[in-house]
Amino acid sequence: MPEGMPGNGHTGLAVRLAARAGRLTGHTSSLAPGFVQGNLAILPAALAGDFLRFCQRNPKPCPLLGIGEPGSPFVPELGADLDLRTDLPRYRVWRNGQLVDEPTDIAAHWRDDLVAFVIGCSFTFEHALIEAGIPLRHVERGRNVAMWRTSIACAPAGPFAGPMVVSMRPFRAADAIRAIQITSRFPGVHGAPVHLGDPALIGIADLARPDYGDAVEVRPDEIPLFWACGVTPQAVIAAAKPDFAITHAPGCMLVTDLPNSALAVL
Amino acid sequence: MPEGMPGNGHTGLAVRLAARAGRLTGHTSSLAPGFVQGNLAILPAALAGDFLRFCQRNPKPCPLLGIGEPGSPFVPELGADLDLRTDLPRYRVWRNGQLVDEPTDIAAHWRDDLVAFVIGCSFTFEHALIEAGIPLRHVERGRNVAMWRTSIACAPAGPFAGPMVVSMRPFRAADAIRAIQITSRFPGVHGAPVHLGDPALIGIADLARPDYGDAVEVRPDEIPLFWACGVTPQAVIAAAKPDFAITHAPGCMLVTDLPNSALAVL
Repeated sequence: MPEGMPGNGHTGLAVRLAARAGRLTGHTSSLAPGFVQGNLAILPAALAGDFLRFCQRNPKPCPLLGIGEPGSPFVPELGADLDLRTDLPRYRVWRNGQLVDEPTDIAAHWRDDLVAFVIGCSFTFEHALIEAGIPLRHVERGRNVAMWRTSIACAPAGPFAGPMVVSMRPFRAADAIRAIQITSRFPGVHGAPVHLGDPALIGIADLARPDYGDAVEVRPDEIPLFWACGVTPQAVIAAAKPDFAITHAPGCMLVTDLPNSALAVL
Repeated sequence: MPEGMPGNGHTGLAVRLAARAGRLTGHTSSLAPGFVQGNLAILPAALAGDFLRFCQRNPKPCPLLGIGEPGSPFVPELGADLDLRTDLPRYRVWRNGQLVDEPTDIAAHWRDDLVAFVIGCSFTFEHALIEAGIPLRHVERGRNVAMWRTSIACAPAGPFAGPMVVSMRPFRAADAIRAIQITSRFPGVHGAPVHLGDPALIGIADLARPDYGDAVEVRPDEIPLFWACGVTPQAVIAAAKPDFAITHAPGCMLVTDLPNSALAVL
């Protein structure tokens, strides 16, 4: 458990309260296991329509869990006592595509024209895989998952365009088949893989050199599975260079009050 | 449509009536599309308990669609006007593991102590794949699917034991993932694949040389998927050398009145 985290970090609300009080300023991985975590993207209303259309057109990398009303930092369907200005451990503030601040709250940056988007995260399906007894090597190794930009183009919308980013997890064949079944139940958190097998077919040159995160071994009897990744919308926003945007800092997610099981469609 | 098949072969009953009348003596592939076809195995009651236990322990190669009462050639849950003695185009009769007859009906072989087993067949999930727009190369080529004995041992029961036989279909990655999702809905007809990727991991030496059926090309951008196959119980029965057994002749299946969709669990 990260330093400063009280012992009651077993619910989404407890994590949010710790972040709100400034006691939690690091990553949320493994906190409140069983509760849905989400990626955060906040944009001016003038760009929100384009970004919403982008998410609708690219539901595998950008599954929307919730959208705030214009000007509102609340998303009540994800948690009753939830304030996006304070409840994440750390944020990134962007101006014209440049990172300008990494604050632990964004109250000073909030504006009446901002629209908040909460996008599903692979922690939910990883939890389901682990519960099913399917080992995840990067979790066992205590590493971040390995991610790559691919040759798969997202469907563009307004200024938002770019390649799909994927995360990779290696499995033996029987676990790979089971992992496809299990993650298919969770379309709200990227769903089934978008690719398996030969990484070159989606433009990945070297499994030992991820574009983001940490490499993990793929053994000779394993096959790599590739899932659409929530880094995609962040990369797309960075490339679009909006005059203003706020995202979560890497690994510092919004922890909601939804149990992971609530996102299972079957 | 095989020679002698009337133009009304679009229901299971029509196919059965054609077989019963001796007008259909060849394979049932592509007949009555949309209706469940099944493998047939008939054993003396003294062996039926062991074989039933074998099927229960190996549901992927041996998914039971129906079992007759001892001595009865009827399986009413699969079709009201259905007589297993006459309604398949062709049978194989075995004594002590030797093929002794390939008749077009088995009325002369029927005994009061026989128990009939109808086991699910991949035609049903292939129909679902084709309906979903996923091409099947062996179907496009008009060939039988390629099958291999594997290094995967079935769980034994009494005299029934042996390796799992699998069928292989190659797909591009996105279709492979979709094929896993679709066939997972059909546990009654072998369900999800048992393996994907490297054939050597399940004891298959050469994809160009199947043990049964016809080889099909696996292209560089494709991955082979392997499903448990209904040839498994036939091979197991042949190896057990029961004093008496009857099976369908290869490709000459029981066509039931169940629509394929009735077997979808989701």
